[in-house]
Amino acid sequence: MASNSFGEIFRLTTFGESHGVAIGGIIDGCPPGLLLNQDFIQAELDRRRPGQNELTSQRNEYDRVEFLSGVFENLTTGAPIAFLVTNKDHRPDDYAHLKDLYRPSHADFVYHQKYGVRDYRGGGRSSARETLSRVVAGAVAKLFLRQNGISIIAFVKSIGQLSMDIIDYNIDPTTVEASAVRCPDPLLTDSMQKLIVETKNAGDTLGGEISCIIRGVPAGLGEPVFDKLHADLGKAMLSINAVKGFEIGSGFKGARMKGSEHNDQFVQQEGKIVTLTNHSGGIQGGISNGEAIYFNVGFKPIATLMMDQLSVDKEGNETIVKGKGRHDVCVVPRAVPIVEAMAALVIIDHMLRRQAYIF
Amino acid sequence: MASNSFGEIFRLTTFGESHGVAIGGIIDGCPPGLLLNQDFIQAELDRRRPGQNELTSQRNEYDRVEFLSGVFENLTTGAPIAFLVTNKDHRPDDYAHLKDLYRPSHADFVYHQKYGVRDYRGGGRSSARETLSRVVAGAVAKLFLRQNGISIIAFVKSIGQLSMDIIDYNIDPTTVEASAVRCPDPLLTDSMQKLIVETKNAGDTLGGEISCIIRGVPAGLGEPVFDKLHADLGKAMLSINAVKGFEIGSGFKGARMKGSEHNDQFVQQEGKIVTLTNHSGGIQGGISNGEAIYFNVGFKPIATLMMDQLSVDKEGNETIVKGKGRHDVCVVPRAVPIVEAMAALVIIDHMLRRQAYIF
Amino acid sequence: MASNSFGEIFRLTTFGESHGVAIGGIIDGCPPGLLLNQDFIQAELDRRRPGQNELTSQRNEYDRVEFLSGVFENLTTGAPIAFLVTNKDHRPDDYAHLKDLYRPSHADFVYHQKYGVRDYRGGGRSSARETLSRVVAGAVAKLFLRQNGISIIAFVKSIGQLSMDIIDYNIDPTTVEASAVRCPDPLLTDSMQKLIVETKNAGDTLGGEISCIIRGVPAGLGEPVFDKLHADLGKAMLSINAVKGFEIGSGFKGARMKGSEHNDQFVQQEGKIVTLTNHSGGIQGGISNGEAIYFNVGFKPIATLMMDQLSVDKEGNETIVKGKGRHDVCVVPRAVPIVEAMAALVIIDHMLRRQAYIF
Amino acid sequence: MASNSFGEIFRLTTFGESHGVAIGGIIDGCPPGLLLNQDFIQAELDRRRPGQNELTSQRNEYDRVEFLSGVFENLTTGAPIAFLVTNKDHRPDDYAHLKDLYRPSHADFVYHQKYGVRDYRGGGRSSARETLSRVVAGAVAKLFLRQNGISIIAFVKSIGQLSMDIIDYNIDPTTVEASAVRCPDPLLTDSMQKLIVETKNAGDTLGGEISCIIRGVPAGLGEPVFDKLHADLGKAMLSINAVKGFEIGSGFKGARMKGSEHNDQFVQQEGKIVTLTNHSGGIQGGISNGEAIYFNVGFKPIATLMMDQLSVDKEGNETIVKGKGRHDVCVVPRAVPIVEAMAALVIIDHMLRRQAYIF
Repeated sequence: MASNSFGEIFRLTTFGESHGVAIGGIIDGCPPGLLLNQDFIQAELDRRRPGQNELTSQRNEYDRVEFLSGVFENLTTGAPIAFLVTNKDHRPDDYAHLKDLYRPSHADFVYHQKYGVRDYRGGGRSSARETLSRVVAGAVAKLFLRQNGISIIAFVKSIGQLSMDIIDYNIDPTTVEASAVRCPDPLLTDSMQKLIVETKNAGDTLGGEISCIIRGVPAGLGEPVFDKLHADLGKAMLSINAVKGFEIGSGFKGARMKGSEHNDQFVQQEGKIVTLTNHSGGIQGGISNGEAIYFNVGFKPIATLMMDQLSVDKEGNETIVKGKGRHDVCVVPRAVPIVEAMAALVIIDHMLRRQAYIF
Repeated sequence: MASNSFGEIFRLTTFGESHGVAIGGIIDGCPPGLLLNQDFIQAELDRRRPGQNELTSQRNEYDRVEFLSGVFENLTTGAPIAFLVTNKDHRPDDYAHLKDLYRPSHADFVYHQKYGVRDYRGGGRSSARETLSRVVAGAVAKLFLRQNGISIIAFVKSIGQLSMDIIDYNIDPTTVEASAVRCPDPLLTDSMQKLIVETKNAGDTLGGEISCIIRGVPAGLGEPVFDKLHADLGKAMLSINAVKGFEIGSGFKGARMKGSEHNDQFVQQEGKIVTLTNHSGGIQGGISNGEAIYFNVGFKPIATLMMDQLSVDKEGNETIVKGKGRHDVCVVPRAVPIVEAMAALVIIDHMLRRQAYIF
Repeated sequence: MASNSFGEIFRLTTFGESHGVAIGGIIDGCPPGLLLNQDFIQAELDRRRPGQNELTSQRNEYDRVEFLSGVFENLTTGAPIAFLVTNKDHRPDDYAHLKDLYRPSHADFVYHQKYGVRDYRGGGRSSARETLSRVVAGAVAKLFLRQNGISIIAFVKSIGQLSMDIIDYNIDPTTVEASAVRCPDPLLTDSMQKLIVETKNAGDTLGGEISCIIRGVPAGLGEPVFDKLHADLGKAMLSINAVKGFEIGSGFKGARMKGSEHNDQFVQQEGKIVTLTNHSGGIQGGISNGEAIYFNVGFKPIATLMMDQLSVDKEGNETIVKGKGRHDVCVVPRAVPIVEAMAALVIIDHMLRRQAYIF
Repeated sequence: MASNSFGEIFRLTTFGESHGVAIGGIIDGCPPGLLLNQDFIQAELDRRRPGQNELTSQRNEYDRVEFLSGVFENLTTGAPIAFLVTNKDHRPDDYAHLKDLYRPSHADFVYHQKYGVRDYRGGGRSSARETLSRVVAGAVAKLFLRQNGISIIAFVKSIGQLSMDIIDYNIDPTTVEASAVRCPDPLLTDSMQKLIVETKNAGDTLGGEISCIIRGVPAGLGEPVFDKLHADLGKAMLSINAVKGFEIGSGFKGARMKGSEHNDQFVQQEGKIVTLTNHSGGIQGGISNGEAIYFNVGFKPIATLMMDQLSVDKEGNETIVKGKGRHDVCVVPRAVPIVEAMAALVIIDHMLRRQAYIF
């Protein structure tokens, strides 16, 4: 009920605070007999760590995942898969000055209101370090999806005011990873990098958007009423730190179109029923239709600034929050593997949910 | 797992097809001792029915809710509350010509792919008539929330290209209900009405956006990781028929702002810690902070057009879908009470979830 | 959370009070394409009704099940299956004298403590009439299980002190139904009938035991840790009104055996690995092993007596509970189809749960 | 769905195999602000370990629990509490000879049937070492229950044919812990010790029964239909390795009583409504009535014998399973803290479930 779990059949439960002993989780319900390629999983985890280049935070968080159970002779056994990442570079003293402060647009105030007690070290449980566990579990899910012909690619669509206009559903993952900001457009990549440097120098921060494309999903995934496939994808994305918006297919633009423009015409091609356009984003009535699934996620700018801000302490007295510590200017490039991981968790779960009825 | 249920503690399970015997549901987990004001519930239901004015569909669906259990001497007893609305005006023969067709951007194709069998009468389970049950349960939730000082108001923000610019958190519900399109701006209401009539004459349809404001929510609702309050609101909204997008607070606009513009400064006012701005939309780190909760929902245009469209039948042969039947041009005004109902279900559930830990 | 639902994938939610408008439920997660034989379902329901013969209560509850959704052209569609049984013979005035009393060993006192309000008409939600819904859903499950080669037979093993000694796993259902008390032993049937008549004349009541045998369950059903197959069967049985005990296989007798007596030896027979004995009751480590599943359920005597009893009213004043109304002397024969229904719900759910992982 | 989780609000998820890296779990939903007394938790864990005296197995499993999250300055924070116990004394080579064998009445065969792959080292996930995690989580629950005036005591009622006759609800825990076999009757303790030694010398094993008494539970816990308090207790107990039976209150004996003997008469004592007898075992209609909760659990004899047994290998060939390794003769004394732990998990969960509705 406190809901540190995600998924119905392939179910991840996570634990850990940013400056505690470790971050980790348990995956319950992974199909048995899956080859658990630990190099792939570690590589996925490396994609989200900071310090990958000069554009991201300089903390030396080299996160190594360790598996504790559920794997025998490299195969999953059907037993729960526990894993953890030990916190090495934690410096709780960096946060002592925040003990009694409520940082603007952080979770300090609401945690205090909710729990009465608060682990103030680096955001505690509210830190984005929690997403480490999602990336590990998402990588396990990806191994299964890959075997079933499903691929997931996310990329940076916009940073601040700089945005791609046209999205190619057949995007190549190598062009994404080749970009320092994970934007497949090389020109835009350059502008984004400049913008990040300028913003960093100003002590300010940036938000942006990530798009995600899932190919190879068979028709029939998703439940028709409350657990529509895009509703579950939406919840998954909105559960990521700093996300403020989600749209599937045509999204908010679709709300301005006429029905005659928006409808996706069915045709037969090579013996298969497909649609000529894909404003539906691969999902109709909450159920995948076999086309590419496409969605878009909006992230607010990071709340921790390298400048002084006015705020209050827990007695309500006015105080100044100093800008210090090691922080990203823009989290969006690092969030790309997190978006993919959450998408993978939703898709594998709905594959297993559907399979339950196939007799 | 097929998930015709919504909520963890206050839990609604719905049933029924648009042209079956009845539509209804069971509410499990309603607090005992609540005065079940059936007039209020019926009035809420009346807000979503078609035929309210010339702008909406002319079907004579006069939907009357009947309670079967869980209420004794007008009070809820803690037992499950079952209710149903008998389908009176169903004309399944209107749909016989659709038996083997896949209407564009409808759920016909995906249901067939998923289940092998399909109830083709008026969309069957995929029809928006299912939302009747949500409105009934939402009305029960509203009775409880009202007692606890919480109010929920949704309204039409845009239809097609016509949109409000500024949102007033202190909006008055009577101005919404006074508008034929449930838009609190009277001038825009006129333009929207004209647009609907023009579009109807062209046999086309429109989408739009609904905004929702929830006032009186105490700080501390929502769970910090996967069941963030806005993630659950997002899923709730995305589960409504035709919804393509959801954004909380600053939403996608927030993704284009700088951190220094976006952060909501804490101050003390009248002995209470509040924020000066509300880009967070009343939720920080997934937990309510006591400010007004504000979100925005995008609806695609209705897929049923009053014009001929090309499509395929279930063998994949090209065919024409005729525009006939009784259908809305724009579902957005009628969706306002549905948005409110789903919001009420999320808020009551999180109130009960929070209460569980208060010792 | 209030848990009027049972099952994870094949999920029944029930509603209704003994003297309300109707009793019924929603089955969510029934596989699509199942032929819903309504005659069979009604026949199962008829097996639990009172008034079947002179040994049971004389109320004229002729319960007719009506399906409201989820079935189209006699096939299940994958949509939720709602059903109800209208309460016809309710006489709430029979219960007015009980409004402020707490009957001994009934739920009156605890309902009042739990909910503050209480529907005192005939036990309200605590009445065994709720099990009507279980029998309907169990009958749907049986239709599916039968198609998959699985049969479930329960029968009366004991009434009061009269008990069968030896259980034959290959029992024939017709011998059970031929007995007025559903005991396959004809001699014992006679003695039990006499005992019931004598006890009735004394205004007293009887308990007893029901045994259940499930054949055709493939090896591999059940989850190894918390949702062991016999743990879920045990919970299912203990959730039936008046049940006080559950034992699987050797049960409590097994606790007195030596390991060398109790172990079931594996052998190969006709190319299949089987066990020579079945003290395990068809389940090992929580998972079915392909042998017949066998368990035993103990029911306390009915609490409503046809004699005066001392008790208290809600102020704690001593009072007398009069013996009146129409009641069974021994519920055990009528509980046989309820035991079967709950067993069917557990087995179908675990079949679907297992299927989810088969790729 | 694979259900390595237990509880709805206070929810334990466990992981780990007997000869893997570690055993552990995550507790989600523990109320914040609870003083986490780690000495108490370790002491509870010590109660279940082997090697406590000459009567139990000689493995040197000194199990030390380590907490990884959810605790800050000794208080629970509301975040998930992860813990682990590293496996130190594992000797997987002891089990290499069992790789292809199916030991009688073990889970080897069913795991193979269910998963296709099998971790054969010491039973893998099916080992009773998994209950370590239950004892840790149960100890956390006990800390909360103790604060709320609730105590749980389990003890050995019988071993083999030797059994206590009369149960005293006011049993003193020190008399239980003073007995080498955790039986509060000193004379019976001596006989049981002798029986264990004799049985060990014969290479055979024993089962037995554990009784449990819970005092201080307020009236009103438990849900009236499927999640009856005793149904959840029953499932909890039946999920413990080797358990074959569960009975609440009068249990199977109650099935042989008359209603007039079995009914518990209500009376007022010191302004409180209580019952004169307690055949109900503290639960009526599935809901606690404020009396002591009393139940009984039956354990089969341990399946691992120190003698040769006939069996088959995975090809079905006849083979001999040798009696070797380090194993208990009778697991019942060590299972006492496990029974208490599972009871604690059920009671805390229902306390939180009830609290959710208190407004």
